[in-house]
Amino acid sequence: MKAFVLLSGGVDSTTCLHIAVEEFPEVEGISVNYGQRHSKEIEYAKLSCEGLGVDHHTLKIDGIVPLTMLTDADAAIPNISYSEIEGVSPTYVPFRNGLMLSAISSYVAGQWDKEMRESEPVTDEWAIYFGAHAEDAQNWAYPDCTPEFIGSMANAIYVGTYRAIRLHTPLQWLTKREIIKRGSELAIDWRKTWSCYAGGELHCGTCPTCRARRQGFVDAHVTDPTEYAA
Amino acid sequence: MKAFVLLSGGVDSTTCLHIAVEEFPEVEGISVNYGQRHSKEIEYAKLSCEGLGVDHHTLKIDGIVPLTMLTDADAAIPNISYSEIEGVSPTYVPFRNGLMLSAISSYVAGQWDKEMRESEPVTDEWAIYFGAHAEDAQNWAYPDCTPEFIGSMANAIYVGTYRAIRLHTPLQWLTKREIIKRGSELAIDWRKTWSCYAGGELHCGTCPTCRARRQGFVDAHVTDPTEYAA
Repeated sequence: MKAFVLLSGGVDSTTCLHIAVEEFPEVEGISVNYGQRHSKEIEYAKLSCEGLGVDHHTLKIDGIVPLTMLTDADAAIPNISYSEIEGVSPTYVPFRNGLMLSAISSYVAGQWDKEMRESEPVTDEWAIYFGAHAEDAQNWAYPDCTPEFIGSMANAIYVGTYRAIRLHTPLQWLTKREIIKRGSELAIDWRKTWSCYAGGELHCGTCPTCRARRQGFVDAHVTDPTEYAA
Repeated sequence: MKAFVLLSGGVDSTTCLHIAVEEFPEVEGISVNYGQRHSKEIEYAKLSCEGLGVDHHTLKIDGIVPLTMLTDADAAIPNISYSEIEGVSPTYVPFRNGLMLSAISSYVAGQWDKEMRESEPVTDEWAIYFGAHAEDAQNWAYPDCTPEFIGSMANAIYVGTYRAIRLHTPLQWLTKREIIKRGSELAIDWRKTWSCYAGGELHCGTCPTCRARRQGFVDAHVTDPTEYAA
């Protein structure tokens, strides 16, 4: 039994990593380099894995995802909250989560490929953890974080891998506040997580994800160890 | 309105290409380089696109899919028919179709990304064609060609792209015989298609896909213009 955790190095996926470690005897953290504007988040993903004694692997799918705010280093980052954004989020990357989940599924399925050819695959042996949460899905900000998307991908992965891999999304119905509470109960060292869209020395404190991070700690009544630039 | 066709250069996807040209005013052929053992099929995909005056684009996702018979140049190719294969097909590439469909979805969604941000997306404007057929799904030879997989991916793509992209699988319930009949009605030049797993000068005539190709022409009562080495 082994779990693979899609790991961006932020609050949500790092909480998923700690949940997976509680639930599976063996865990591996997987980051995806899809051409994002800075690699700081992958460094933090590695840091959390090291802290837990968990292997880390990076999958590279550069060159597929089109230029957007998150992949174009020249694009401006908005200094507003998610709640002020109407319609499609400027941080939506077209079908990114579908691509990342498919890449990790190919990678994981490749691991049991040889065994599978000699025996019946066993359900619940292999898991992929994906940290989509309730606020990602709200108002269709990220359509590839909605329950409808998750259910469909879970089924495609399960069927498409001979029913060997199941998708786990334990944060699907939690808010940022609830995730920070849950993560703190799991004794996460939040200093080993990175949320900011800008790849500066410190968290900028003004981009949508920094604002969500900061407010999440306030709402959860948890001391925020993050140093913000502003 | 535009259709994008996942194009391997074989009988099935080339038939899909011709169907798309009948059904959409604008069409683009998309091949995926996932590290397959030879690039001959992509050359044939380009050839068919040229013949139809259709653009062709290659997406590269090398390095994700694990080594299997289709990606490991040192692996032996079995000289048997598909019907003689029991259990998991030796030509199953773990979750390959999920990965290819996700890559093309990111690529297509990126095309309308800017427009989308300014207006409501319109259903039925954009299509992805995928040539999975009935015999691929039989006995779970390729789990990522089954109706269950296709329905789940169609829904994930539709939901995950703000309901802008629909998955078309017109061959889903057709056999190879029926596809060759359908393609011949569409006046496909079969010499512009490539099926063989080996990347030789001619079709080898003995690998599972050469056998299926040859038998398909016989069963369809269509003259087979293919030169086979054996």
